[in-house]
Amino acid sequence: MREKLDTNALFLGPKAENADLFEKLMMDAFRDHIFWRRNFHPEDPLALSQTDKRSQPYEETVDVFQSRFYELLSKLKKSVPYHSPRYIGHMISDLLMPALLGYLSTMLYNPNNVSYESSPVTSEMEIEVGRDLAAMMGFDPVKSWAHLTSGGTVANIEALWVIRNIKYFSLVAKDIAVKYQKNIEVQMPNGSIKSILEIETDFELLSLSPESLSELAFKFFEIDWGFNIEQEVYKHKRNISHSGMSDVPTSKILVPSSKHYSWPKAAEILGIGRSNIIPVEVDENFRMKSSDLMEKLKVLYEAKSPVLAVIGIVGTTECGSVDPIDEIVAIRNNYEKEYNSSFYIHLDAAYGGYARSLFLDENNEFRAFDEIINTVDPSWTDNKVYKAFEAMKDVDSVTIDPHKLGYIPYPAGAIVFRDKRVKPATLCKAPYINNTTKSDDEDAYIGAYILEGSKSGAAAAACWLAHKVVPLNKNGYGEIISIPVNNAAVFYELLESLNPIKLNIDGKEVFVETQILNRPDIDILLYCFNIKGNTSLDQMNRINSILIDELSFSTDKVAAAHDFVVSSTDLGYEIYGNALNKALNQLGIDINEWQQDGSIVKVLRSSIVTPFLKKDDLKEYYWNNFSVSLVQTIEKVVKEGGFVS
Amino acid sequence: MREKLDTNALFLGPKAENADLFEKLMMDAFRDHIFWRRNFHPEDPLALSQTDKRSQPYEETVDVFQSRFYELLSKLKKSVPYHSPRYIGHMISDLLMPALLGYLSTMLYNPNNVSYESSPVTSEMEIEVGRDLAAMMGFDPVKSWAHLTSGGTVANIEALWVIRNIKYFSLVAKDIAVKYQKNIEVQMPNGSIKSILEIETDFELLSLSPESLSELAFKFFEIDWGFNIEQEVYKHKRNISHSGMSDVPTSKILVPSSKHYSWPKAAEILGIGRSNIIPVEVDENFRMKSSDLMEKLKVLYEAKSPVLAVIGIVGTTECGSVDPIDEIVAIRNNYEKEYNSSFYIHLDAAYGGYARSLFLDENNEFRAFDEIINTVDPSWTDNKVYKAFEAMKDVDSVTIDPHKLGYIPYPAGAIVFRDKRVKPATLCKAPYINNTTKSDDEDAYIGAYILEGSKSGAAAAACWLAHKVVPLNKNGYGEIISIPVNNAAVFYELLESLNPIKLNIDGKEVFVETQILNRPDIDILLYCFNIKGNTSLDQMNRINSILIDELSFSTDKVAAAHDFVVSSTDLGYEIYGNALNKALNQLGIDINEWQQDGSIVKVLRSSIVTPFLKKDDLKEYYWNNFSVSLVQTIEKVVKEGGFVS
Repeated sequence: MREKLDTNALFLGPKAENADLFEKLMMDAFRDHIFWRRNFHPEDPLALSQTDKRSQPYEETVDVFQSRFYELLSKLKKSVPYHSPRYIGHMISDLLMPALLGYLSTMLYNPNNVSYESSPVTSEMEIEVGRDLAAMMGFDPVKSWAHLTSGGTVANIEALWVIRNIKYFSLVAKDIAVKYQKNIEVQMPNGSIKSILEIETDFELLSLSPESLSELAFKFFEIDWGFNIEQEVYKHKRNISHSGMSDVPTSKILVPSSKHYSWPKAAEILGIGRSNIIPVEVDENFRMKSSDLMEKLKVLYEAKSPVLAVIGIVGTTECGSVDPIDEIVAIRNNYEKEYNSSFYIHLDAAYGGYARSLFLDENNEFRAFDEIINTVDPSWTDNKVYKAFEAMKDVDSVTIDPHKLGYIPYPAGAIVFRDKRVKPATLCKAPYINNTTKSDDEDAYIGAYILEGSKSGAAAAACWLAHKVVPLNKNGYGEIISIPVNNAAVFYELLESLNPIKLNIDGKEVFVETQILNRPDIDILLYCFNIKGNTSLDQMNRINSILIDELSFSTDKVAAAHDFVVSSTDLGYEIYGNALNKALNQLGIDINEWQQDGSIVKVLRSSIVTPFLKKDDLKEYYWNNFSVSLVQTIEKVVKEGGFVS
Repeated sequence: MREKLDTNALFLGPKAENADLFEKLMMDAFRDHIFWRRNFHPEDPLALSQTDKRSQPYEETVDVFQSRFYELLSKLKKSVPYHSPRYIGHMISDLLMPALLGYLSTMLYNPNNVSYESSPVTSEMEIEVGRDLAAMMGFDPVKSWAHLTSGGTVANIEALWVIRNIKYFSLVAKDIAVKYQKNIEVQMPNGSIKSILEIETDFELLSLSPESLSELAFKFFEIDWGFNIEQEVYKHKRNISHSGMSDVPTSKILVPSSKHYSWPKAAEILGIGRSNIIPVEVDENFRMKSSDLMEKLKVLYEAKSPVLAVIGIVGTTECGSVDPIDEIVAIRNNYEKEYNSSFYIHLDAAYGGYARSLFLDENNEFRAFDEIINTVDPSWTDNKVYKAFEAMKDVDSVTIDPHKLGYIPYPAGAIVFRDKRVKPATLCKAPYINNTTKSDDEDAYIGAYILEGSKSGAAAAACWLAHKVVPLNKNGYGEIISIPVNNAAVFYELLESLNPIKLNIDGKEVFVETQILNRPDIDILLYCFNIKGNTSLDQMNRINSILIDELSFSTDKVAAAHDFVVSSTDLGYEIYGNALNKALNQLGIDINEWQQDGSIVKVLRSSIVTPFLKKDDLKEYYWNNFSVSLVQTIEKVVKEGGFVS
């Protein structure tokens, strides 16, 4: 087999260049399925005869079905053209053919991965996919626990649910150990050993390390208590599963201010409350500021306020930035030594998770920095992104969405826990899911340990086939994802070259300044424009707002009237604070106008996820066209918007 | 158009009888999609040339892709034969062709219904589907709020999240109204009007009616406070969204003991705690006992313990029973008058929801009882099921799964709220979802109000097309669902006719008694067998356990070795208590052995969901075969298991 995949053979293509291949395999799958149906008890009669098919009711029903079906197909024409390199908006693109074909082939069999007995094929695939992801994170796949979710939000909620339950179990373990005077040795965050009977405060218990908490839970249930300990735990008044969150101390979750909106949502849903989400400042690259994290952890320690978890983000959905995971890990190490306190580190890598494949060689070893900057993106010269990806192996859990940079259809999120001993924390069983069908793999009984219930087995098969065809290293996904990463760098340079844009408006020279707000950590760019001389943020926002309207997808326009499609966002002062000062200064904007509650900067946002811009001629064609189109649109906006008097 | 659909034209069929139609439409969708791609900026170059396709890397990648794809197809052969009428286990069957084709056609366009701008076509379909479901429930579709979820568990969690947030908002409203001395008129559950300033206790606030709570939230934000009231609410210390569940009184959720396991899970996740789930006893038909509900509500009232919600179940997933929804509604009415206290009524109709279509005529009017028992199921003579379905219109919210009796592929759950004024209770926005693409329908901006984030637009299109082809009344879904309902009654009679089964074991006459544990409320039957004369529950469980192994699906057997496939469950003493006494008595089992903690009865469980057993000859063929196969298997088990000495 070749070293590297040819990505050309993996996608249907902007002009459906691979239509023949797709059609052939789709037909193979369909016909194969048909014969599977027919081969099951071939002696059974047909449920429908040729005569039935010629009956009026049958024919009329087919007519209704067909006419409505064509109505659907017609409506779908107003869809967003994600297949085209002209779409550079949200993180959506053409999908991997193996994933699409895997999905639709499997959907015909209708497996439900809530239980092994209803999905013996696809449950095992889901666990295999989970282990692939664990290996890509640098975890030991055998010791980890990973499964698919409907999306990243559910994965984030589930992660926090698991972490919450394990952390608070320490209170129950202590109370019961004291009641029955059972000694359990506990490793404290600084490495010392203590008997649980000697741990005095809730704060200390809630500050144990993830490793130590898993160990504690394991030892606790190993003890011969001489009675039904599960029952005693179940009904304990400080068991949050049993009694809710009302009788236990609160604890905090530190998240960069650039967080995904699912984090406050998760804290709200879990009864923790949004106020216990502590935002950590971000720097000019929108990455979490380690200094602020350290400071906030210190303040919390001094207030004896336990920390549930620090959330690092690998590719924020708003601006694609990668937090310094290596620094977060180092901070935890220091915190454990200096303060004898610890916390979970969970990564929200819903977006960026698959990009770790870029950094792995065929043996799953982390590649050398020099090799990567030479082949992927020479802009990663400060090696911060590299170090962050490397350190992902040292965290406790990761959210990662196959339906983002995995190029797999919705619904496909995933949660990966490094230590499978977390599984019992959220066990809920249904008696009628009996698993009379047996698997050799105990992890294949998925339903009892997850937030969701019934779930698509087809989604698991889609991921499975994608992973089988496209390895999760530099030769597979790395080869695909290097295309967007490389094009984001090209786009960055293109925008830089457009500064300033010289326009001629009614015989008058007007200069429009281009401001790029981030050097892309993966493949998202934020940028905006201002007319030279304008100092008003409000005025600048109006210019960009009209420009955004022009460059957004609209069902009111015919499709081809969209030269390019971008997305946009509002960067809020409360979230980004001083991180934007430099950029706004460069644009000549009055900083006082920015530094006010509720103030925003409207920016254009491009996720470059198209896998098609690999060859130089294609890159040139699309980026040149974009450049021309952008300048024309800006000219139109400046002219028609009356921004030049 | 005909009055009734011909269900023969809607499914692929046990022998893929409709393969030609399916294939034709699938090809139509695929080729149509291809040209949509090509018609978007036709001037753009091909991304892949014929020469590229002849290159070695391309060909080698195609080889890998194909060989792995065929590996998937081969593995899928071990799937469970849901397409066959021989599968009578879990609630899974063949799917509607419109749904399958809707899904796969739309998946090629890759819409994401988290935001309107990334799914202008399918977001509107999702809202239309939601309104279809609301109308089927008897709600006013315009005033309701409904959307799809990944499944029923997520829908249940979301419902409880919304209910929790609205209920507890009353505490915040009261505190702020007192602080600023603003009078807001509140309708008390008994109909009297009070100023919020005069409501004295948290208990009274938490006992307001759903209607009154929606009204209160609406009025509260209508007031001109003279400052940013959202901020004041947001940061209020008793706002559970902000502060978590630690500073507020607990409240209870009453659920029949036959509940789905997602209910304790939901309470646990939401920080309410499983101990605040109060199980209500079920009767011999496994339906919630109204007398026990009344008693428990009275005890809670006397303890001044607020009730968040009563959950009624329409088709429990374990045994298909339908709670007396009409009685629950009447109990609430009385509770409001007598105790001046109220609660939400949420229905978990994940399984049974679509069966309401049976009861609706073409004008969405609820049909007369006599008409229904004549055409659908003469066993519904006590009209309890009828009344329960009728009263669904009077509840506050309903979980209903298109991927169960909607015959739509996973993932498709749904949550329907009668009053859309609940929407702000869970608002969470992402700034980069700007909705620059505008919809005429404000509900089509789905993402900000739901538990999940990114979600499959294809699932919405699948439901949409299914609903367009198959109306949600007696002529559409009612026509389909009447087939399982009718066959469940046939199956019931068949089992009755098999009591006792006379066997000849080694020349000795042995009688095996058949016990059906429920008259099916929809289409699930529980049943078990005992050797006449055996009084030991343990022994009986062993017999049924081996029988279950014989009749369950196993990947170790070749497919055709499965004559029929059933599922099974363990009915626990803690859950079903005395509800099983009568049945066990009839089987001659020692009741004392049953009435012990941890005791279970092992039973066979058949969900009859196959839509193919409509014609008499087919019914006869399959049920006769089943009868023969069952008796043979029982004979084998009794003989080989050494149960006869």
